Amino acid sequence: MGVRPYPLASRVGHAQPSTIAIRNGSVQVGNGAFCLIAGPCAVESREQIVECARAVKAAGANALRGGVYKPRTSPYDFQGLGEEGLRLLATAREVTGLPIVTEVLDPRDVALVGEYADCIQVGSRNTQNYPLLKELGLIRRPVLLKRGMAMTIHEWLLSAEYILSAGNTDVILCERGIRTFESATRHTLDLNAIPVLKAETHLPVLVDPSHGTGCAAYVPAMAKAAMAAGADGLLIEVHPDPATAVSDGEQSLTCGQFAALSTQLRTLRTALR
Amino acid sequence: MGVRPYPLASRVGHAQPSTIAIRNGSVQVGNGAFCLIAGPCAVESREQIVECARAVKAAGANALRGGVYKPRTSPYDFQGLGEEGLRLLATAREVTGLPIVTEVLDPRDVALVGEYADCIQVGSRNTQNYPLLKELGLIRRPVLLKRGMAMTIHEWLLSAEYILSAGNTDVILCERGIRTFESATRHTLDLNAIPVLKAETHLPVLVDPSHGTGCAAYVPAMAKAAMAAGADGLLIEVHPDPATAVSDGEQSLTCGQFAALSTQLRTLRTALR
Amino acid sequence: MGVRPYPLASRVGHAQPSTIAIRNGSVQVGNGAFCLIAGPCAVESREQIVECARAVKAAGANALRGGVYKPRTSPYDFQGLGEEGLRLLATAREVTGLPIVTEVLDPRDVALVGEYADCIQVGSRNTQNYPLLKELGLIRRPVLLKRGMAMTIHEWLLSAEYILSAGNTDVILCERGIRTFESATRHTLDLNAIPVLKAETHLPVLVDPSHGTGCAAYVPAMAKAAMAAGADGLLIEVHPDPATAVSDGEQSLTCGQFAALSTQLRTLRTALR
Amino acid sequence: MGVRPYPLASRVGHAQPSTIAIRNGSVQVGNGAFCLIAGPCAVESREQIVECARAVKAAGANALRGGVYKPRTSPYDFQGLGEEGLRLLATAREVTGLPIVTEVLDPRDVALVGEYADCIQVGSRNTQNYPLLKELGLIRRPVLLKRGMAMTIHEWLLSAEYILSAGNTDVILCERGIRTFESATRHTLDLNAIPVLKAETHLPVLVDPSHGTGCAAYVPAMAKAAMAAGADGLLIEVHPDPATAVSDGEQSLTCGQFAALSTQLRTLRTALR
Repeated sequence: MGVRPYPLASRVGHAQPSTIAIRNGSVQVGNGAFCLIAGPCAVESREQIVECARAVKAAGANALRGGVYKPRTSPYDFQGLGEEGLRLLATAREVTGLPIVTEVLDPRDVALVGEYADCIQVGSRNTQNYPLLKELGLIRRPVLLKRGMAMTIHEWLLSAEYILSAGNTDVILCERGIRTFESATRHTLDLNAIPVLKAETHLPVLVDPSHGTGCAAYVPAMAKAAMAAGADGLLIEVHPDPATAVSDGEQSLTCGQFAALSTQLRTLRTALR
Repeated sequence: MGVRPYPLASRVGHAQPSTIAIRNGSVQVGNGAFCLIAGPCAVESREQIVECARAVKAAGANALRGGVYKPRTSPYDFQGLGEEGLRLLATAREVTGLPIVTEVLDPRDVALVGEYADCIQVGSRNTQNYPLLKELGLIRRPVLLKRGMAMTIHEWLLSAEYILSAGNTDVILCERGIRTFESATRHTLDLNAIPVLKAETHLPVLVDPSHGTGCAAYVPAMAKAAMAAGADGLLIEVHPDPATAVSDGEQSLTCGQFAALSTQLRTLRTALR
Repeated sequence: MGVRPYPLASRVGHAQPSTIAIRNGSVQVGNGAFCLIAGPCAVESREQIVECARAVKAAGANALRGGVYKPRTSPYDFQGLGEEGLRLLATAREVTGLPIVTEVLDPRDVALVGEYADCIQVGSRNTQNYPLLKELGLIRRPVLLKRGMAMTIHEWLLSAEYILSAGNTDVILCERGIRTFESATRHTLDLNAIPVLKAETHLPVLVDPSHGTGCAAYVPAMAKAAMAAGADGLLIEVHPDPATAVSDGEQSLTCGQFAALSTQLRTLRTALR
Repeated sequence: MGVRPYPLASRVGHAQPSTIAIRNGSVQVGNGAFCLIAGPCAVESREQIVECARAVKAAGANALRGGVYKPRTSPYDFQGLGEEGLRLLATAREVTGLPIVTEVLDPRDVALVGEYADCIQVGSRNTQNYPLLKELGLIRRPVLLKRGMAMTIHEWLLSAEYILSAGNTDVILCERGIRTFESATRHTLDLNAIPVLKAETHLPVLVDPSHGTGCAAYVPAMAKAAMAAGADGLLIEVHPDPATAVSDGEQSLTCGQFAALSTQLRTLRTALR
C-alpha cells in the first residue's frame, strides 16, 4: 500500500483494526467484536419503540436504531418526531438497557442529538455534507457514517477523515447499497466494500442489508453474506408491524423474523471464527 | 401527464415555462431568456476575481460565479475564503455590474450568503441536504439547484419542491453530470435531462459542462450541445490562468477560450430561434 | 496524447479525421461530411419499408436503416424477417436510391447481409462479439459499430480495432446510450463521447438519439444537441405509423416529425460551420 | 409472483429448485448440491492445466475450468489455444476425473466445444448473443450462463429462456459482477442477485468472485459471502503461478490459497445447513 490521502483513516500504522466502544464500552465494535443494531426505520410512538426495543433485545441485538429526523425524498412525507422522538428513544434505552443509534441531518441539531444518542448516524444523503461532518468531529460520540449512494470507497474514507481530523476518533463505516442500473433491488448492496475496507482502513465496517436491498425477503441472505465477508456488525430494520410502518415497511423484518435471523447469525459466527 | 408528487415544480398548470429574475431583473432566465454564468471555481484573490469578472463580462456573460465555501472531497484541501470571499465577489460585482452566484453548504450560512449573493447555488453534494433546502425556501434569493451525482430527475424535482413548498418560488435547475462507469470524462453530463425537464417542470434548466466533463477541451462542444438541446443557460468555469487555479483548473477555460465560445453560442442561438 | 493500444483507430498519425464512403461514395461520412440515416426499427412489409424510404428520402435522409435480424431481449418477441427482409430493403433502395444500413447478429450471416447491405450495423449487444467483429473485418463494406450499453470509450475503440486489424478500414462509430441509474430515459445518451472520440480517433462518430432516449418526444432535442457537439451523422428511427410498429414504436418519429427535424438540422448545420 | 415473461425459467410451477447433472451426474448442482469449479483463466500448456487440475481436485474442487477461446478486449492480446486447448482440457480430465467447463464465443464452435466440454460457458460479453444462445439450446450439454456487465436480472432470465425454449433444459446462472462507478474493484459483484434469483427461478445460481472483484485478496471474503447468501456453487480462478499467467493473474488464487479457501468453505457449509 502506498501513501493514502486519509492518514487518520488508513490501515497503515495500525497493528490491529480498531475497536470502538459505544456507551462507555457497553457495546464494542471492530477487530473481532461484532455488533447487531436493530430497530424501526422511524420512531413512531412510545408503544412502537419500546415494543420493538424489547423484542430486538430479547433476540440478541446489541443496540437500538430508530430515526427521528428523517431525510425524506418528498417534503410532503413524514419528517420524523424530532426531539420528542429522542425522548422516546431514551425511554426505550431505559427500559431495555440498549444503547441508541439515531441519525442527524442538521449541524444545528448535533449537540441536541448528542445529548440523547449513544452513537450518531450520518445517512447516505449527507456523507459529503462537510459542515455536518466537521460538527460531528467536535463531539464525543461515535459516528456511524453510511456510504453515499454514488460514493466511491476512496471518497468515503475521505469523508471519515473529515470527522477524524476534527478530533473525533470514533468513526464506524456502514455500507448500505449504491446506485446502479439494476432495479430488482432498491439499491445494490456492495459487499465487495468489506474486504476493500479491511485492507484500507482500521475503522470498523457495518452493513445495512435493509436499505441495501429494500426488500425484507432478501435481508437474511444478505445479512449472512455480510457476516461471511467479514463485516463487524449489521444494521437491520425491524418493526413490530411492518405493514403499518410510516416508512420503509417493505424492507423491515418482523420481530419474529429478526429473532430467527439472529439465531442463524450466531451459528454462522461460530463457524467463521 | 398524470399526477406528479411535485405539484409546485410540475409543468401542469403553467401555460408557459417560468422566467426567473436575478438581481431585480437585471438578468432573466427561462422561457426564452438565456443566461450565461461564468467565473472561477473558487474565489482566490481580489485580482483574480476582478480580472475574471471583467473578462467574462466583456465576453458577454450575464452573471459571475465563484465559490467561497468549497465542498472539497478531502479535509486537507483548500476550503474557500468564506466571508472574505463574499466581499471580494461583491467588489467584482461593483466593478462590472454582474450579479453574483455562489454556493452555500451550511444552513447557518444562508443568511450571510444571501446578504451578498444575487443567486445562491446548492452543489451536487447537498441536493438532498433537506435542512439546507428548507432554509433556502425561507429567503428571497433565487436558488440554483444542481443535480446530485446519483440523483434521478424525479428526486431532483422533489428536492426543488422542498424549496418551493417552503415559500421561495425562484428555483433554477442545473444539470452537472452523473456518476457512471465511464471514466473518460469526470462525470457523464446528462443532456437528456433537458428535454425530460422541459416536459416535467416549468422551472428553468441550466447546464454546467465544466463539472460535467471535467476537461476544458470538451467544454465548448458540450456547451453548444446543451444550448441546442434547449437549455436556458450555462454555467462555465473560467480562470485567468487555469494552470495555477487552486481547484479544478483542468476543467476551466481561459478568458480567451471563453470569449471564443461565447461568440459561437450567440451564432448558434440565432439559428435555434 | 501518449501511446494508445488501438494504433489503427487512434487519431495519432492522421492529419485529418477520416471520411468513409458508403455505396461507392454516393454517401460520405466524416471530416465535415454529415450523414442522416433514417428508417424503421424493423422491416415489416414491402409497403412499410418503401413508404418509409420515400418519406425519409424526401425529407433529406442520406441512407435508409431497417432491421431484419432483430436482437430481442425475449425469445418470444418478433425476431425479424431475415433474408426476406434483406430483399425488401433492396427494393426500397431500388425505388429511392438510398443506400441501406442493416444489422447483423451472427458471423454466419455476414456474407449474406454483405450482398444486400451498403453498410452493416453491429448493435449494442454485440460490440464485444469478437468472432462477429473479425468476420466483419474480412468483408468490403463499411461497418457501423454501436457502443455497448456498459462499454467504456476505451473498450469501444478496441472493438473497432478488431475490425480494422482484420483488414476492413471502414468503421463508423455510433453512440446510442449507456446504462445508468436514471430511468426517465430508456438509456442515457452520452454525448460527451463525441468530443472524447474526436480527440482520440480519426473514425467518424454518429449518434442514435432514438435508442438513446427511448422516447420520440426527446429525439429532436438530442439530435440537435448531437449535431452541435460535433457528431458526423445521426441514426433516427422513423415509422409511417409508430403506434402499430412491431418494435420500438414509442421511440420512432412519424415521417412528418422527421421532416420537421431534418429542416431544423439543416439550419443548425449552417450556423455551426 | 405474477406472470413472468420467462415461463421456462420461472420458479412458478416448480415444487423444488432444479438440480442439474454435469457429466452424467458425476457432479450435481442446485437444490442443495453445491459445486466448486476451479482452474485457470486460460489454458496455457499441458503442464499448467494438468498441474492446476490435480491441485484443485486435491483441494476439493468438483470441476475444472479453463478458457481456450478467450474474449479479449484487445485484438492484440492472447486469444486462446482453441482446439488444442480443448485437447489439453480433455487430458486434464482424464488424469483427474474432473469434468471440464470452458467458454464458447462463436456459434460455429458449439458442436466442437460440445465434443470436449462437460459444461459450456457463455461469458459476460455474449449473454445477449442470441444466435449463440439458440445454438446452445440445441445441444445436450449444460450451459453456464454468466450475467452481462450491464444486464438486469430480468434480462438475464430472458437470455436463459432463449436456451431453454430451444430445447436445452440445463441452464446454470453465474453472477460475475456488474459495471458501476466504483473502481476499487474491477466490477461490482452483485450478491443481491442470489436471493432475487432464488425467488424468481428454479435454475441453479453460481458466483464468480474472481472476475467480480478482479483481485485475489478479495476472493475468499466474497466466496464465503456468496455461499452464505445461498449460492449453489462457485467459479474460482486458480493458477499454479499467478505472476506468470497470460491473463487475469492478479485475480487468480495460488493452488495453496485455493486449498485454504476450500477448507473454510466446507466448515461454512456445515454451519449453513
